[in-house]
Amino acid sequence: MALIVMKFGGTSVGDVERIQNVAKRVKAEFDAGNQVAVVVSAMSGVTNQLVDYVTSIAPLYDTREYDVVVSSGEQVTSGLLALALQTLGVSARSWQGWQLPVNTDSAHGKARIVGIEGEKILERMARGEVAVVPGFQGVGADGRVTTLGRGGSDTSAVALAAALHADRCDIYTDVDGVYTTDPRIVSKARKLNKITFEEMLELASVGAKVLQTRSVEVAMKHGVRLQVRSSFSDEPGTLVVNEDEIVEQELISGIAYSRDEAKITLLGVADHPGIAAKIFGPLAEASINVDMIVQNVSEDGKSTDLTFTVTKADLTRAVETVKKHMAELGYRELKSDSNVAKVSVIGVGMRSHAGIAQRMFQALADKGINIQVISTSEIKVSVLIAEEYTELALRSLHTAYGLDAED
Amino acid sequence: MALIVMKFGGTSVGDVERIQNVAKRVKAEFDAGNQVAVVVSAMSGVTNQLVDYVTSIAPLYDTREYDVVVSSGEQVTSGLLALALQTLGVSARSWQGWQLPVNTDSAHGKARIVGIEGEKILERMARGEVAVVPGFQGVGADGRVTTLGRGGSDTSAVALAAALHADRCDIYTDVDGVYTTDPRIVSKARKLNKITFEEMLELASVGAKVLQTRSVEVAMKHGVRLQVRSSFSDEPGTLVVNEDEIVEQELISGIAYSRDEAKITLLGVADHPGIAAKIFGPLAEASINVDMIVQNVSEDGKSTDLTFTVTKADLTRAVETVKKHMAELGYRELKSDSNVAKVSVIGVGMRSHAGIAQRMFQALADKGINIQVISTSEIKVSVLIAEEYTELALRSLHTAYGLDAED
Repeated sequence: MALIVMKFGGTSVGDVERIQNVAKRVKAEFDAGNQVAVVVSAMSGVTNQLVDYVTSIAPLYDTREYDVVVSSGEQVTSGLLALALQTLGVSARSWQGWQLPVNTDSAHGKARIVGIEGEKILERMARGEVAVVPGFQGVGADGRVTTLGRGGSDTSAVALAAALHADRCDIYTDVDGVYTTDPRIVSKARKLNKITFEEMLELASVGAKVLQTRSVEVAMKHGVRLQVRSSFSDEPGTLVVNEDEIVEQELISGIAYSRDEAKITLLGVADHPGIAAKIFGPLAEASINVDMIVQNVSEDGKSTDLTFTVTKADLTRAVETVKKHMAELGYRELKSDSNVAKVSVIGVGMRSHAGIAQRMFQALADKGINIQVISTSEIKVSVLIAEEYTELALRSLHTAYGLDAED
Repeated sequence: MALIVMKFGGTSVGDVERIQNVAKRVKAEFDAGNQVAVVVSAMSGVTNQLVDYVTSIAPLYDTREYDVVVSSGEQVTSGLLALALQTLGVSARSWQGWQLPVNTDSAHGKARIVGIEGEKILERMARGEVAVVPGFQGVGADGRVTTLGRGGSDTSAVALAAALHADRCDIYTDVDGVYTTDPRIVSKARKLNKITFEEMLELASVGAKVLQTRSVEVAMKHGVRLQVRSSFSDEPGTLVVNEDEIVEQELISGIAYSRDEAKITLLGVADHPGIAAKIFGPLAEASINVDMIVQNVSEDGKSTDLTFTVTKADLTRAVETVKKHMAELGYRELKSDSNVAKVSVIGVGMRSHAGIAQRMFQALADKGINIQVISTSEIKVSVLIAEEYTELALRSLHTAYGLDAED
């Protein structure tokens, strides 16, 4: 017997029939003798509709009232799932964020969970009742409803699993696990049985949107065993675990990509201390996230070239912001390019193995793919390439690192 | 300066634009120097959608989870109206039922308000903040969300007005007041400037669906000055007040009708004590409301005829229920007729004036309309007639009681 937290996303609870299917899955875990708490998202499309209402009434909205409006979607699903479980003969009740409570800070619209009081539902679960908890919502120190930001239901589930000391937290989604790379592009992509928290974090941060980044951070901090699996099949998914649980570690676990990058290059930037701060200060003030940054060694000791990337959505604002400070920055020319993609190889194995990055550069060179920018972390190497080479790069690297599935 | 509670129904907040219009109306009262609390319904159509979800998942639903689901509609509107007010520069915040709190009993799905704690919003209102309160919802002694039953937002508004000792409670709806009769049928119908609580109650109970019955009861009990007026025009509406506030009382205030009646006649019922209980007991057990009841004097002292009415929706079940008990009831024949309508004349003036009923019977006789059943209360006379005479009866009575508007 185990204590399990199950989380179902918007697609999995998209209509009445799917909610009834979710109830059957929950009943199966319950009938197997487990204690079960379920975290649910809003029915797909509902949150977008509610956000539309808010922004069409108040483009610059009070986030406290935004939270009142958008948290209602999860409330509805939690009641409906409790009803669907009862119909199957499973004792169940819904617990709203303010009822448990799920305590958060008061950063409305993007609140962080500070603690969940699990005593009441633990007691009920021990007596055979399934707890249904709306994801994404909590209650702030001000006594008002808060939400965690988009995708926050994953974090709700992991935080609940931590509070209940759950044996497992299963995230049911519309994919059946974490893959070595995007299977829509690389037909030989393999589903991973296990992956480490660190790798999962890097994958999430480079655009493999299987789990919300914050949820992985919370799981890693509290040692919650996460499983990503499909709502629509019974196959086991991918376990996200501590590194020491993975006996035979692959060098590379996955290859991720993001087409959401744009590159800005400043030519002839004065090469003296403080220049980087002068450039990136205004961008930070404008809430523009800068991802990769490369500064070449200055040849003449007087001026240098600087390249950095932002998201495609921020490109126009980023260019405007930099141009506004042209005089003080003293650069000669600004070039921008949104026809780029970022490709990353990720693996905890690279900590102890040399030559990982070299294998990447060689594989890309063999295909004639030019590397524009390189950045590295302890377990990741990312390169910026021309966007049209994305698929070719993914397939080549997948083969080069020996990740291809056997036929 | 006054303290006003304004209530807007589902049609009045049916879309973003209408919510913005409501905000303008609220701002006008606020700018006139009043303290304002607003009670809102769900956007029209939303509650029906939510009820559909519930009943399609669980036809015999847990009313506690039903309340979790359906209360979300008003929650959304309250947040959106607060945002719309802020956009107009009016300080505003929403207060959910559990936040004030609006305390109710635990009869989920049809809860009754036992008290509203108004201190927090009174303090904020005194400082110039508008309080926006979702109607229809509260919190039970069990700490769970409750709802008051369909139309309950009127009652929320009146109960809030009572708790805040408001000077007035304005119910904004899609009609511009209470009329002497249905203006769609009688073109000479007049809008009433004032009507008594008692008359309003009788009007509501015979199908003039302007205000929820329960809201009028609460207003009468607490002496809340109610006004029914249109969301879509600036004309004054109808004040619902105590009898002593109406100086020149008309004999008859209004003429109401209901086509939602069906008649059942039992011929040859044994005429002995306890027979009525035997008939109406099983109907009550089946939750079938019986409205009018007439028993003729027995001619032979052995058997009599009994006629009663139920709603059209209950007719089939009522007939089945009675037939199931035919043996013990010992009647000879059962006749049913759904081709009937109930017409009622209502007025507190009839307490002190004789001949009111006689004038009704004469007016109907003059038009050759046969009266099938008669029932009376202190301030109401109702008759059952064939449905096709409804319009003719309304027009004739409207003229007979001198209610016609002058040209």
